Amino acid sequence: MWIYEKKLEHPVRVSCPDPRFAKLVITQYGGPDGELSASLRYLNQRYTMPTDKAKALLTDIGTEELAHMEMVATLVFKLLDGVPAAELDREGLGGHYAQHDHALFWQDANGVPWSAKYIQATGDPVADLTENMAAEQKARATYENLIQLTDDPCAKDVLKFLRQREVVHFQRFGEILNDVQMHYASCKYYINR
Amino acid sequence: MWIYEKKLEHPVRVSCPDPRFAKLVITQYGGPDGELSASLRYLNQRYTMPTDKAKALLTDIGTEELAHMEMVATLVFKLLDGVPAAELDREGLGGHYAQHDHALFWQDANGVPWSAKYIQATGDPVADLTENMAAEQKARATYENLIQLTDDPCAKDVLKFLRQREVVHFQRFGEILNDVQMHYASCKYYINR
Amino acid sequence: MWIYEKKLEHPVRVSCPDPRFAKLVITQYGGPDGELSASLRYLNQRYTMPTDKAKALLTDIGTEELAHMEMVATLVFKLLDGVPAAELDREGLGGHYAQHDHALFWQDANGVPWSAKYIQATGDPVADLTENMAAEQKARATYENLIQLTDDPCAKDVLKFLRQREVVHFQRFGEILNDVQMHYASCKYYINR
Amino acid sequence: MWIYEKKLEHPVRVSCPDPRFAKLVITQYGGPDGELSASLRYLNQRYTMPTDKAKALLTDIGTEELAHMEMVATLVFKLLDGVPAAELDREGLGGHYAQHDHALFWQDANGVPWSAKYIQATGDPVADLTENMAAEQKARATYENLIQLTDDPCAKDVLKFLRQREVVHFQRFGEILNDVQMHYASCKYYINR
Amino acid sequence: MWIYEKKLEHPVRVSCPDPRFAKLVITQYGGPDGELSASLRYLNQRYTMPTDKAKALLTDIGTEELAHMEMVATLVFKLLDGVPAAELDREGLGGHYAQHDHALFWQDANGVPWSAKYIQATGDPVADLTENMAAEQKARATYENLIQLTDDPCAKDVLKFLRQREVVHFQRFGEILNDVQMHYASCKYYINR
Amino acid sequence: MWIYEKKLEHPVRVSCPDPRFAKLVITQYGGPDGELSASLRYLNQRYTMPTDKAKALLTDIGTEELAHMEMVATLVFKLLDGVPAAELDREGLGGHYAQHDHALFWQDANGVPWSAKYIQATGDPVADLTENMAAEQKARATYENLIQLTDDPCAKDVLKFLRQREVVHFQRFGEILNDVQMHYASCKYYINR
Repeated sequence: MWIYEKKLEHPVRVSCPDPRFAKLVITQYGGPDGELSASLRYLNQRYTMPTDKAKALLTDIGTEELAHMEMVATLVFKLLDGVPAAELDREGLGGHYAQHDHALFWQDANGVPWSAKYIQATGDPVADLTENMAAEQKARATYENLIQLTDDPCAKDVLKFLRQREVVHFQRFGEILNDVQMHYASCKYYINR
Repeated sequence: MWIYEKKLEHPVRVSCPDPRFAKLVITQYGGPDGELSASLRYLNQRYTMPTDKAKALLTDIGTEELAHMEMVATLVFKLLDGVPAAELDREGLGGHYAQHDHALFWQDANGVPWSAKYIQATGDPVADLTENMAAEQKARATYENLIQLTDDPCAKDVLKFLRQREVVHFQRFGEILNDVQMHYASCKYYINR
Repeated sequence: MWIYEKKLEHPVRVSCPDPRFAKLVITQYGGPDGELSASLRYLNQRYTMPTDKAKALLTDIGTEELAHMEMVATLVFKLLDGVPAAELDREGLGGHYAQHDHALFWQDANGVPWSAKYIQATGDPVADLTENMAAEQKARATYENLIQLTDDPCAKDVLKFLRQREVVHFQRFGEILNDVQMHYASCKYYINR
Repeated sequence: MWIYEKKLEHPVRVSCPDPRFAKLVITQYGGPDGELSASLRYLNQRYTMPTDKAKALLTDIGTEELAHMEMVATLVFKLLDGVPAAELDREGLGGHYAQHDHALFWQDANGVPWSAKYIQATGDPVADLTENMAAEQKARATYENLIQLTDDPCAKDVLKFLRQREVVHFQRFGEILNDVQMHYASCKYYINR
Repeated sequence: MWIYEKKLEHPVRVSCPDPRFAKLVITQYGGPDGELSASLRYLNQRYTMPTDKAKALLTDIGTEELAHMEMVATLVFKLLDGVPAAELDREGLGGHYAQHDHALFWQDANGVPWSAKYIQATGDPVADLTENMAAEQKARATYENLIQLTDDPCAKDVLKFLRQREVVHFQRFGEILNDVQMHYASCKYYINR
Repeated sequence: MWIYEKKLEHPVRVSCPDPRFAKLVITQYGGPDGELSASLRYLNQRYTMPTDKAKALLTDIGTEELAHMEMVATLVFKLLDGVPAAELDREGLGGHYAQHDHALFWQDANGVPWSAKYIQATGDPVADLTENMAAEQKARATYENLIQLTDDPCAKDVLKFLRQREVVHFQRFGEILNDVQMHYASCKYYINR
């Protein structure tokens, strides 16, 4: 179970509301390679990992991605905060306003709702950990694209922090993949199967 | 942000593995009215609630639903644990095994992956809280159906606990809806708009 | 079965075509909380209602929502009528024109096609009627958002009429929910189950 | 707008409940080539038809398909009527019972919810009418498959009636396609464009 | 199996990059009536065709549609080539850039990912061939719409070539439908069934 | 463009029809980690690869996956060949028969239609190649699961051949990822950016 602590993992500020950019950033909340995809992918895969260390890592990173999801939510909300309906519409968020007013939603930058089809769990630890390494690379690439799409130094700071965490997670998944492969080697796994 | 505590909100045991029932219970993990729907619905709606009390309630219940999601995951995993491939196939889980082995997945009882289309956030606190009351009713009804579909007293105990929590949440959403309506009344909200 | 009567429930006029607004209004035709969702939700739930009065109400409101669906279709069509392709493209409807020319489609304001995942039928009358009350609240909120997004008094008139009907339906679902609960109370429903 | 008349277009009876067959027949309620697809396809295409006769035909057939939708709903409901949960589960409807009890839902025979992706409206009358002719052929083929899957003469009677109506609709769409093409020929449509 | 030949079926040039138009043209790559839909529809239906001639035609056209898919991909890629992120964003492709940079994706003009729900295979050759005739009409209509949406003579040339091929395919499907119907007539198909 | 050669990459035989297994194997035709996902993923990513060698590899493997897709189609078709409707229904394919008769469809083992949400193209070659390595691991795992689910030595032979090819592709994607990273290192890519 989880305990909520009323603070963000890293502060989230914006220089000023920017609905155009909110429309893009939301993809890291509910888009294919966003934080929801990451968190649900890892928390879901825990059960079939072969070592306690691998289970713990997935739990840790899955939980941290919940915190990132909250950071992105806060970023999007601040980018929309107080922007009148007419301005939202001019900036391409008329559909968002009609359907969600100033609320957030689990969707990509085109308004396509999140789907579990974005993620996978094969029950094969090697396949799952490789999937996770790919996921971190894709999330990193998306943050790099988003950083190109804003001039706001505060928003850039948030995105750079999140990008950096993806790089760290990629490394950690690589290490645990080695571990898991050594575990199977020592179990003579392929012979027994 | 969230802190993970390595225990379940309520113990989850099964009398013996029962893949047939696992296939049904998974709907409360990744189906339309399951715990993922609940948690993501509430955590997402927090930002546009008009009072601190309403924000706090959504955070609390959204966080508790994460714990329920973990309970249902544990239940499904134990119902599948150690069951050979051929038996999974006989019990209607051949497709699950082919695609996910013994892993979990965010899907309903027919294998349809979870979609954010199941939930909504309108940014209108009255509409959102009414949506939440409906969600709790639907989750309660689903748990009641599942309780009819098993004879295992251990599994029933888990499902009854979860059903009971939905009833409590329904009550609490009802109370906060009253609160929010009084808040607007005292703001002369409808007049100002 | 249904008989078609060649008139609208309420007249639909627009001051002049306005493709930008058509793109938004279409969400009440084929979006999550639109008239198609409403009609299909109610007509589908009729069969498991416990009283004739509840069945009749769902049939009535479901049939009226078909008429609202037709009103929204007419509104969208008039907002697009005669607008050249280049102007549609400038107003954000280039994708719509490429795929549908001036035709309508069952989609939300971002072009996401309608899905039955937006609605539910649990077979539990209390849960289903609460779902319907939430649906009417969400539809009301969407109409209020749309009213903010246009200056056309004719379009506003249509939207206000439809919003008002949702409020009436909300009331009627509330009354029938009381009825159904009293019906179960008199049947000692919870004891027998 | 539509007026509801409290009778079915054609009587719907079953020899006895048959949940296994209900699971299959539901595809003509909410599956790719079912009655919902048909009705929504035709009612939606009316607006861009070039002649009053074509508009009237789409309205007529679209309205009749609503009646067929109701007939299929009644058929499915009777096939499920009074069947206990355990038997539903044995016949492959455990997932349906968990999520919908004895209620209907807009889904195909595998439990995949209906999507507007099944249908199209291009705004080109020739393309749209050809799409409709294909739709009627696909619906006919589905009814023929379903007729192979039951021995119940009452259910067969309903399905044969519906199949026959699809054949009639196919003919009528073919005639109106000729009409529309002659209309364009007389307008020198292709020259003007 | 297929052999790749490193040339396009027809040359693809653009006068200059035009991201606005790229966003629209992509619907013929991954939208409802695009080349992917066509190719996958035909290659998938081959197995249940009753004559070798029909199987061969589906294989031929299905393979040609792969080549068209590649032509549309090349067209979209050239329309995006070298366009900076900020300009993509101004032209409505900010979401595309965030999620895919300058890469292609199987999606429609609104960014909705391709789904097999767009196509069908009933196993009934008459129904399937009629579906294919409708598909060719819908593709033709979409190309005509796209031709209206650009002034670039090079892009127009590509689209006109592709439109023309759809017309040819429509004819060929019509001929093979006659053939198949004569084949069944000579088999006394309907009597034997 | 592609040339069709009328032979399979590797022979496909079955000992005898086995609809139960056909229902499972189809996931490698149209499921999340199947051959369609593979082929469309690689052919789509070609355009943004930085070296000719990487483009050629994606074209080669993407084309080979088309051949694998055809092998799986042939396998499924032979497993269904000549099986009567009633037996299909008993083996869990009643829904398939109702909707597709003996035809194939792009769907997973539960009947969920294929979606482009299963795959990604970020335009970042490192991310895309890592995604491809994960895809090959997931396909390998799925083939291993399927091999557990049949006793037919002919079907096993086909699946083992396909599994082996995935392992080879995984290696080749790993090599080209090294290549691409060295290419960027020699371009001082990260500095210039």
